[in-house]
Amino acid sequence: MDYNQKALELHQTHQGKVETVSRVPVKTRDDLSTAYTPGVAEPCRKIAASGDAVYDYTFKGRMVAVISNGTAVLGLGNIGPEAGLPVMEGKCILFKEFAGVDAFPLVIKADTADEVVAFCKTVAPTFGGINLEDIKSPECFEIEDRLRKELDIPVFHDDQHGTAIVVTAALINALRVVNKNIGDIRVVLNGPGAAGTAIIKMLMTAGVKDIVAVDEHGILVEGCERTESHKMWLASCTNPRKVSGGLAEAVKNADVFIGVSKPGCLTTEMASSMNKDAIVFAMANPTPEIFPEDAKKAGVRVIATGRSDYPNQVNNVLGFPGIFKGALSVRARDINDEMKLAAAYAIADLVGDAERCEEYVIPSPFDGRVVEAVAAAVAEAARKSGVTRI
Amino acid sequence: MDYNQKALELHQTHQGKVETVSRVPVKTRDDLSTAYTPGVAEPCRKIAASGDAVYDYTFKGRMVAVISNGTAVLGLGNIGPEAGLPVMEGKCILFKEFAGVDAFPLVIKADTADEVVAFCKTVAPTFGGINLEDIKSPECFEIEDRLRKELDIPVFHDDQHGTAIVVTAALINALRVVNKNIGDIRVVLNGPGAAGTAIIKMLMTAGVKDIVAVDEHGILVEGCERTESHKMWLASCTNPRKVSGGLAEAVKNADVFIGVSKPGCLTTEMASSMNKDAIVFAMANPTPEIFPEDAKKAGVRVIATGRSDYPNQVNNVLGFPGIFKGALSVRARDINDEMKLAAAYAIADLVGDAERCEEYVIPSPFDGRVVEAVAAAVAEAARKSGVTRI
Repeated sequence: MDYNQKALELHQTHQGKVETVSRVPVKTRDDLSTAYTPGVAEPCRKIAASGDAVYDYTFKGRMVAVISNGTAVLGLGNIGPEAGLPVMEGKCILFKEFAGVDAFPLVIKADTADEVVAFCKTVAPTFGGINLEDIKSPECFEIEDRLRKELDIPVFHDDQHGTAIVVTAALINALRVVNKNIGDIRVVLNGPGAAGTAIIKMLMTAGVKDIVAVDEHGILVEGCERTESHKMWLASCTNPRKVSGGLAEAVKNADVFIGVSKPGCLTTEMASSMNKDAIVFAMANPTPEIFPEDAKKAGVRVIATGRSDYPNQVNNVLGFPGIFKGALSVRARDINDEMKLAAAYAIADLVGDAERCEEYVIPSPFDGRVVEAVAAAVAEAARKSGVTRI
Repeated sequence: MDYNQKALELHQTHQGKVETVSRVPVKTRDDLSTAYTPGVAEPCRKIAASGDAVYDYTFKGRMVAVISNGTAVLGLGNIGPEAGLPVMEGKCILFKEFAGVDAFPLVIKADTADEVVAFCKTVAPTFGGINLEDIKSPECFEIEDRLRKELDIPVFHDDQHGTAIVVTAALINALRVVNKNIGDIRVVLNGPGAAGTAIIKMLMTAGVKDIVAVDEHGILVEGCERTESHKMWLASCTNPRKVSGGLAEAVKNADVFIGVSKPGCLTTEMASSMNKDAIVFAMANPTPEIFPEDAKKAGVRVIATGRSDYPNQVNNVLGFPGIFKGALSVRARDINDEMKLAAAYAIADLVGDAERCEEYVIPSPFDGRVVEAVAAAVAEAARKSGVTRI
């Protein structure tokens, strides 16, 4: 099917995808006096008297901002805010349709980290949470770090953590299938950008001890030189065996390959050199690092991709709707590591022991149980870690 | 009726008033591939190739931002952004219910003109127009002036121009009732704040030659001293007869009194001192500058207030929904004086010759013809004045 043409028609017919509607009628003078002046002054006074009342009388507690400066949109690169709007509208309707969470897209003319941070801090009073989207690396790291410190609402860069959460969920189940322990495995991460770096951090939180990151210049290892500070950090904190060389050297005897990188870069030879019962997540889209049929031939047991036409699709929609639903339900101040890991386990645990197999380590994006399970787990982790308002 | 309690319940029950919904289904993988990846990349590419395509493939062309920093909310003053949110949500549902225009409220932490301007310029790519709301004077003047110059979408401060447009409409018809010519009348404006100053400017555009502005210190006249620069401008551009003194001196022999000021400040004695066939717009809310029954006794012929329980309610909802609907329909770059005056005449002309009388110089806010008439007039004026994209 030609999705391009179909998408153009859909977007033109509806003039975009997100619409705002009223929850209350304004057909009579009486309606007007309650929803607007003079009655509306009373909720205003309540909020002026006690800030948290904004959660009681406005949409803040159910409304997420999807904010992008358009600097890293899909695989299209820095195409600017206007051109990123179709994606952000799309994200918002996924929030609504998958989790009942209201979301509004804001595409902004802001190139530097300072500008994005200033904007988000200015607009924060309106929203219960901020989903950062399609902001290029390395700015995205600084932006999220600063906003998480400086704002009292959750700030979550989905390209980083949404991907990391779903990958972690898939890995938890893949390890169950091949019967390996998360503390014993060797993982190779190819493409340590925004998503790749978040995946590494999350896997370390989840208990992985041996991770080797590989970029376009080769393996990140203590003493290597890179201009990006997050890569220098990775070089110092990963790769405990000090492996050097390129991707071929990295994947030899590895248990897990995770690619957020380039089409076709994992050859069947490389895949064959991995440990027995290997796991490959090849998430370059639409053409993966290795096609599942080729990986199978090379002896890989569990394979996941970003595609919907193969088993085990790593799809962020398994994460962000339920994560924000859970965070909003407790008026959370943050989405912290505990909440993220809880989300990953909630997703993984939906695949039961009896049904879990090579071809089924991740629930379908349309599995209706996902959102509720993730939301409940995230809310509970938020409570336990003390970041809730209620 | 106790609107306060009713408003609290309404706002709490619905958790605010504005909701976001999807215009397209996302129930199947096929839906997802069209509304989101991979299909969504195609509208992105079209917009990246030609900026104006953002109007074809996104909600920009039908979406208005209602932006406030909460520094002058209703009569409550500087209560901050969160406390202003119920009003801004209210404004948005009026846009939708009265004109079918999508609108989204953004309450922002931004105290200075520089901060508000920077925010609006950053967020502008998302919206087809910006409605500024409840921003205190004098910052509101600078903010709007700068944004109108620097942005290529309409920026409209409703507290200024919305009020001015409806007042002008009412005055046009009131003058028809008393059979006076707009070029011959003497007008007194009490309360030259944001709305008052905009009213004066608009009446000058509409042809009034003799306007006297009065603030809490007395009449603005050449040589007077005020700290606010807009008042010094008014002192130099109005009051051609160099009247001095206070409100009593100003209204003597005036044809029109317009109050956006304080309850009860126009005494019956003052009203009695006005010219024959006087017109009084007493818009302090909820207690007007003079009650209609008292003004009648003093011989005033046409009286309007801000209240819905007297005839001739000056209500901004007669203006902004149709004004933005018209501006958006032609993808306007601005809402200029020609468009504003066209809106005022469109509102006035809905009251036919046969029905026009002292008690009926303004259509009802629920008169369904208003929005279409205003939108059509504004779109035509936009075309004639060359500020349209289509």
